[in-house]
Amino acid sequence: MSDIAAKVKVIAFDVFGTVVDWHGSVSREVADMNLGVDPGKFALAWRAGYKPAMREVMDKGEWVILDALHRRILDKVLTDFGLDSLPEQERQHLNLVWHRLDPWADSVEGLTRLKSRFIICSLSNGNIGLLTEMAKHAGIPWDCILSAENFNKYKPHPDTYHGVVRTFAAEPGQVMFAAAHHSDLEAARCCGLETAYIERPFEYGHNKPKNVAPWSANTLHATSIVQLAELLDC
Amino acid sequence: MSDIAAKVKVIAFDVFGTVVDWHGSVSREVADMNLGVDPGKFALAWRAGYKPAMREVMDKGEWVILDALHRRILDKVLTDFGLDSLPEQERQHLNLVWHRLDPWADSVEGLTRLKSRFIICSLSNGNIGLLTEMAKHAGIPWDCILSAENFNKYKPHPDTYHGVVRTFAAEPGQVMFAAAHHSDLEAARCCGLETAYIERPFEYGHNKPKNVAPWSANTLHATSIVQLAELLDC
Repeated sequence: MSDIAAKVKVIAFDVFGTVVDWHGSVSREVADMNLGVDPGKFALAWRAGYKPAMREVMDKGEWVILDALHRRILDKVLTDFGLDSLPEQERQHLNLVWHRLDPWADSVEGLTRLKSRFIICSLSNGNIGLLTEMAKHAGIPWDCILSAENFNKYKPHPDTYHGVVRTFAAEPGQVMFAAAHHSDLEAARCCGLETAYIERPFEYGHNKPKNVAPWSANTLHATSIVQLAELLDC
Repeated sequence: MSDIAAKVKVIAFDVFGTVVDWHGSVSREVADMNLGVDPGKFALAWRAGYKPAMREVMDKGEWVILDALHRRILDKVLTDFGLDSLPEQERQHLNLVWHRLDPWADSVEGLTRLKSRFIICSLSNGNIGLLTEMAKHAGIPWDCILSAENFNKYKPHPDTYHGVVRTFAAEPGQVMFAAAHHSDLEAARCCGLETAYIERPFEYGHNKPKNVAPWSANTLHATSIVQLAELLDC
């Protein structure tokens, strides 16, 4: 067994972009609605509102779950795309597309293999209800759903990474955080966690390939969650 | 489909005594340790410290997880049973027996059937780490683990039952709470939840059968979680 596989007890995963394909899933639902807009651009605009909205919550210090932030951003994006006439019921349904995201092709197999040896959990800015419905939709076999909502802080606040460590009464080095985003991994590393980068070159769509070059600071670098399972002898 | 099955979206379960057999599991591990004490009486004494310890936490208003309360009670029970000489390492191991409780014979099948139609989650005073390791040990297929730790309140505080409702953006009547304890069900009912009683006549061991007579206030009464699944058309 590799040293790292012997030491790690828990693997926590970022979800949006790492386990599920938000851009493809949102684009497909928007396309199916025949709104007369570019579905890929709509998805990107919606997601672009995500970080500023979370920063505002953290600055104000009053907790707001991601479902509510998604809705605020959606209303603005609909206006920007000239879709002010979209009825309330359709807005509510569309807002929950984040509960219906599809997994990347390797996610369920990779997580199932990792689950045989490690505790696998989410550590996502999505709220608990969102992550639960997504896991049911996508067949994601979490041992436990952990969310920013557990800690009333959005990543990259250190309380979220420390929160996983504390939840499982672990040492920081017994927890590995896996994500497709170097900034998220860097924040976890600052809290003493091991880190694994997962390549998701098409997170922003096939028209906007992402640089997935390795950073040497990460403990592991994998082309997929299945490859992460292989690197960890699962 | 029955009216109640059509209305309910989430079923939250009490865990100790309802899904897992704490008395049998703790007794077996204590017996295996050959401590020279009555294992059943030891298990009962340990569990008897549970409610007063939680009440003390709620009175003081400073959150303490159940693993820590279990350890405080264990140290006292060891003294009461003349086992002050038990080494620290064995105390730590024994304290985690609550992470290794075995399910009742029908629990995994019943929950798996219910999961096909409903969101199934725990609502237990056990901490999240405890419930996660228990689910892994026992093969319990939760969609989501919810714990007193999510709400920093122990049941029967209303925040716990309301917390499940809020987590899933549901109406109270869309959530059913299932337990083997009428007092827990009564507290959930006061928060507007539907309730299901599960008969567990030997929760306190085969020498101390429990009265499992129905209370008419409960929505459903079942002899097992498999029967609950049948009553809900699963």
